[in-house]
Amino acid sequence: MVPLIIAASACSLHNVMLPSQNYGTKKGIKCGTNLGQGFGMKRACCGGLQIKANSQNYNSDDKFSRVLSTSSIRQNFAIRAYEVDANGIASIETLMNYFQHSITYHCKTLGVHDDVAGSTKEMIKRNLVWVYSEMQVSTYRYPKWADVVEVETWLSSAGMNAVRFNWIVRDFKTNQMLNRASSVSVLMNKLTRRLSKIPEEVRREFESYLINSRIIIKGDDKKIPKLDDTTADYICTGLKPRWSDLDINFHVNNAKYVSWILESIPQSILMNYELSAMSLKFKRECNRDSKLQSLAEVCSDKNNNNSNNNIEWNHMLRFEDGAEILRERTQWRPKPTNNFEIFNHVPEASIKDL
Amino acid sequence: MVPLIIAASACSLHNVMLPSQNYGTKKGIKCGTNLGQGFGMKRACCGGLQIKANSQNYNSDDKFSRVLSTSSIRQNFAIRAYEVDANGIASIETLMNYFQHSITYHCKTLGVHDDVAGSTKEMIKRNLVWVYSEMQVSTYRYPKWADVVEVETWLSSAGMNAVRFNWIVRDFKTNQMLNRASSVSVLMNKLTRRLSKIPEEVRREFESYLINSRIIIKGDDKKIPKLDDTTADYICTGLKPRWSDLDINFHVNNAKYVSWILESIPQSILMNYELSAMSLKFKRECNRDSKLQSLAEVCSDKNNNNSNNNIEWNHMLRFEDGAEILRERTQWRPKPTNNFEIFNHVPEASIKDL
Repeated sequence: MVPLIIAASACSLHNVMLPSQNYGTKKGIKCGTNLGQGFGMKRACCGGLQIKANSQNYNSDDKFSRVLSTSSIRQNFAIRAYEVDANGIASIETLMNYFQHSITYHCKTLGVHDDVAGSTKEMIKRNLVWVYSEMQVSTYRYPKWADVVEVETWLSSAGMNAVRFNWIVRDFKTNQMLNRASSVSVLMNKLTRRLSKIPEEVRREFESYLINSRIIIKGDDKKIPKLDDTTADYICTGLKPRWSDLDINFHVNNAKYVSWILESIPQSILMNYELSAMSLKFKRECNRDSKLQSLAEVCSDKNNNNSNNNIEWNHMLRFEDGAEILRERTQWRPKPTNNFEIFNHVPEASIKDL
Repeated sequence: MVPLIIAASACSLHNVMLPSQNYGTKKGIKCGTNLGQGFGMKRACCGGLQIKANSQNYNSDDKFSRVLSTSSIRQNFAIRAYEVDANGIASIETLMNYFQHSITYHCKTLGVHDDVAGSTKEMIKRNLVWVYSEMQVSTYRYPKWADVVEVETWLSSAGMNAVRFNWIVRDFKTNQMLNRASSVSVLMNKLTRRLSKIPEEVRREFESYLINSRIIIKGDDKKIPKLDDTTADYICTGLKPRWSDLDINFHVNNAKYVSWILESIPQSILMNYELSAMSLKFKRECNRDSKLQSLAEVCSDKNNNNSNNNIEWNHMLRFEDGAEILRERTQWRPKPTNNFEIFNHVPEASIKDL
């Protein structure tokens, strides 16, 4: 039988309200090696353990990246043709998917149950799953089709009742850092939908794998305002999950949340800027019957004391009844090149016979 | 500059009206080895050329599957955590994505321009791209998370002005056939959006790679009826492409069409049946501004002279103004097991604090 465990450990799609937005995070944060500054760093100074792909067993992800220690793994992903977006580069959704896959795989290496959720045995006994409460992503350069990226993943502490999942994406050829991301995740009982403290038995399962000296992104303490019809500059209504957006627990995959956020941003921005950073605070999960609205507010633009032409937006996803699902802040920089100058194609209605 | 060539060769998302639905296909069809019947067949009898992964250069898709001849390639895909659907198995969208990626890669091996579109040099000179006109997919078993599948791809003739792309998906461990698919593709001028005959210069680029003895799916001559408000049993309105649905040419990826088709099917069907076959006839492409409706008609069900409990549906995607985008027939079989008996989770609103 297909396991019914809710997708866990950062692969979780269950974005839930955290009692306090910074709950459990500050204590755990130590600005150790501050990898965030380390562009182009060599592997040796990343603190991660070297991984060599198994050259004999190339045929599965298990073998595609070999783990020399379970504290940190590195997996390679070749950007596939369908994973690039309208800009011709890996979409932010693709990167979120890689994060999910790599942390799921990492949890598998920690000796957890062998399912798509990656819950530990003690979590399964208690119907517990990991859910994101917040997430930060920084992107320095987006890989393009056929590029190979190496995603490194590890866990660190985030107080007594949370865990931080961490990711660094590097260009496999140059070892240059392309992206980094981090999420604070907590446990939720999948039957009651209530958050849970981390039971001692569960903590013992992973605490020896925590790498607390490797915090790459601090928790984002800057408040993201609540938007409403009066403060939002753009509102996109009528959003609804598709069947294909659902995970194995019938909940919307977290990467889809980001795609809904993009829906409220004018196309002129999406065509001329690229997402450089985002900070997400998850409030509620949503499922197939949810009807959503995506709100966006421009915080800064090039006319507003912004010498580098970067722009910043605030966002909110909410149900039609007004209940919040997600708050997000995004930062955008002008694209390195504008790829769209000759996109003057004729509308679809003009297709004619031979 | 990012290439602006429309995603070509089956990876194309441009689903266009073909003058005659069977145009150019019948002549090319020869029921050669009839691989469709060949479950569990060995590679030797597939007519394909053996491929051995390059054990030294494991780090990109280029190396992940090595091509000993450009007539046929085989690529391995490990099903990733985010590629399974609510059923815990690889989604039909995932399979469509694999088809797109493998044919793009195959075109690359034919010496075409090295871009995400995969157009040949002569096609690029003439602004030509491949577009699907029809497609058939049969699924015998869906792979699940972490399974490894091998996708074999090759080209065959489909008359003077079309080419057939072919795929067989096998379980890598057992070599059992899991899926097979085939599409008829034609050339379109990406500036005028008009279909084009295949210029002799283009034909010369790929004709030596055609494997005409390996037709695995015949063209589907059974007419798919046009649906309207009176004949459709279910109509899903308000569908709209997301930014993340667009390809590099700002058109909707063909896999998304299938996800819209699923939107008009009741959840009780999606939960209790799995898609066993589909036949698609593409009529028009759509882009980001399109507003769509998905119509579905039940053709047969278990109460209607159907001893094996399989069901068949007709579908149509249309613009809000009524113009057709796609007709499709789907066939469904009862799921091997019902994975949803304990999905009685509490709605999202009940999430409480710790």
